[in-house]
Amino acid sequence: MAVDVSAGLVVIGDEILSGRTQDKNISYLATWLNEAGIQLKEVRVVPDVEGEIVAAVNALRTRYDYLFTTGGIGPTHDDITVDSIAAAFGVPAVMHEEAFARLEAYYGAENFTPARQRMARVPKGGQLVDNPVSIAPGINIDNVFILAGVPKIMQAMLEDLRPLLRSGRKVWTQSLTIHAPESKLADGLGELQRKHAGVSIGSYPFYHAGVGAQVVIRSPDEGAVADAMADLQAFCRENAFSSDGPSEID
Amino acid sequence: MAVDVSAGLVVIGDEILSGRTQDKNISYLATWLNEAGIQLKEVRVVPDVEGEIVAAVNALRTRYDYLFTTGGIGPTHDDITVDSIAAAFGVPAVMHEEAFARLEAYYGAENFTPARQRMARVPKGGQLVDNPVSIAPGINIDNVFILAGVPKIMQAMLEDLRPLLRSGRKVWTQSLTIHAPESKLADGLGELQRKHAGVSIGSYPFYHAGVGAQVVIRSPDEGAVADAMADLQAFCRENAFSSDGPSEID
Repeated sequence: MAVDVSAGLVVIGDEILSGRTQDKNISYLATWLNEAGIQLKEVRVVPDVEGEIVAAVNALRTRYDYLFTTGGIGPTHDDITVDSIAAAFGVPAVMHEEAFARLEAYYGAENFTPARQRMARVPKGGQLVDNPVSIAPGINIDNVFILAGVPKIMQAMLEDLRPLLRSGRKVWTQSLTIHAPESKLADGLGELQRKHAGVSIGSYPFYHAGVGAQVVIRSPDEGAVADAMADLQAFCRENAFSSDGPSEID
Repeated sequence: MAVDVSAGLVVIGDEILSGRTQDKNISYLATWLNEAGIQLKEVRVVPDVEGEIVAAVNALRTRYDYLFTTGGIGPTHDDITVDSIAAAFGVPAVMHEEAFARLEAYYGAENFTPARQRMARVPKGGQLVDNPVSIAPGINIDNVFILAGVPKIMQAMLEDLRPLLRSGRKVWTQSLTIHAPESKLADGLGELQRKHAGVSIGSYPFYHAGVGAQVVIRSPDEGAVADAMADLQAFCRENAFSSDGPSEID
């Protein structure tokens, strides 16, 4: 029987913490992992400071089945992820022959500068994750996957590493959009949650296009989700709350 | 002389970790704090689980000058932030008279259900943060600010609590968009960083509209930013790299 498989994410990036860049990797990775039957349990966003990266990586890689990192693997001086994760594992950062060969072929020997060679370094023992977009690879070491911060490169790397991941139980999700203030739904939702202990019921209010709430029901048990949704729709009918859905969310 | 003032953020939300919702609060708060002279140092995204919220809140509130939380303060059963932060402080969650009065006036006594009354609870000792959008207040306890997860409510609450925050040194930021592959810039940027130790130089590659990098120079010392930018522009001229900017970022 399938079990729960968990993951953490460390986003390495001064640019996220300064507000300069809107992160897009958290929601992409969360959705992608969910489809893979892996539950993202925690995210930490840390600055480009080795001690902070080491602490976050060591806290999460020991706690979850997988740890992903994004950012800091380029050629510039502020790209310190490889050195930091090597430090987290207590191993040196070393040149990876295959990565070196790929990058040298891509840039040409005479243009393969020391800065570009930095992108061929891995924590000792690390394996390559392919980067079809811009060659410089990601890295897998133990249960940690070191990915690029640029969203389209990060997304491409995920496709390459997919076969390396175990899948856990898929979490089934259905949602219903209810056109009534959340505070009118609260008592009924609380009762519904008590009755259907095998599902998780979340309520997310909105204030655009009128006032309402999206109610999301999640469980690894598909039938339990359907049963709770049927009761939720009955609750709406009894109270004359109009609703849209239910819709399935992957 | 102004000193550095730091902040952490705990995003409380299963909906972020499942990928259902794209977080918008991290970048908004980061930018807003930066303008207030406060540096966001770390973000954690945790699930709607009391033990996880308590651990993250206690780790960050003791480490940074301020801690902000978003999410989980509505009327429904999955809104457990107030109870969790009360637990983090080792105090009970109690009804706040002023919050109770405001909410009762808003809903009317006969519609002021137990679920709605939940939104008047605070960790004992907590003060209210105004919510002009939907009345239910945020909370300030010690150095922790408990805010709504809905972006427009979170943003309105920030304006109310602004006078409570000390300002630190503003961090000045200038950026230059350079139309050359980051790996061609890396050696020059490394030298520039060594020469200008008083600024932080970040390089963020892009692959849309051609290949290039946005180089961001940051420091509390405005003159140091200008000096480093002048050298960066000279570096571009010497190497015939075209560039756009510099532009100031707030």
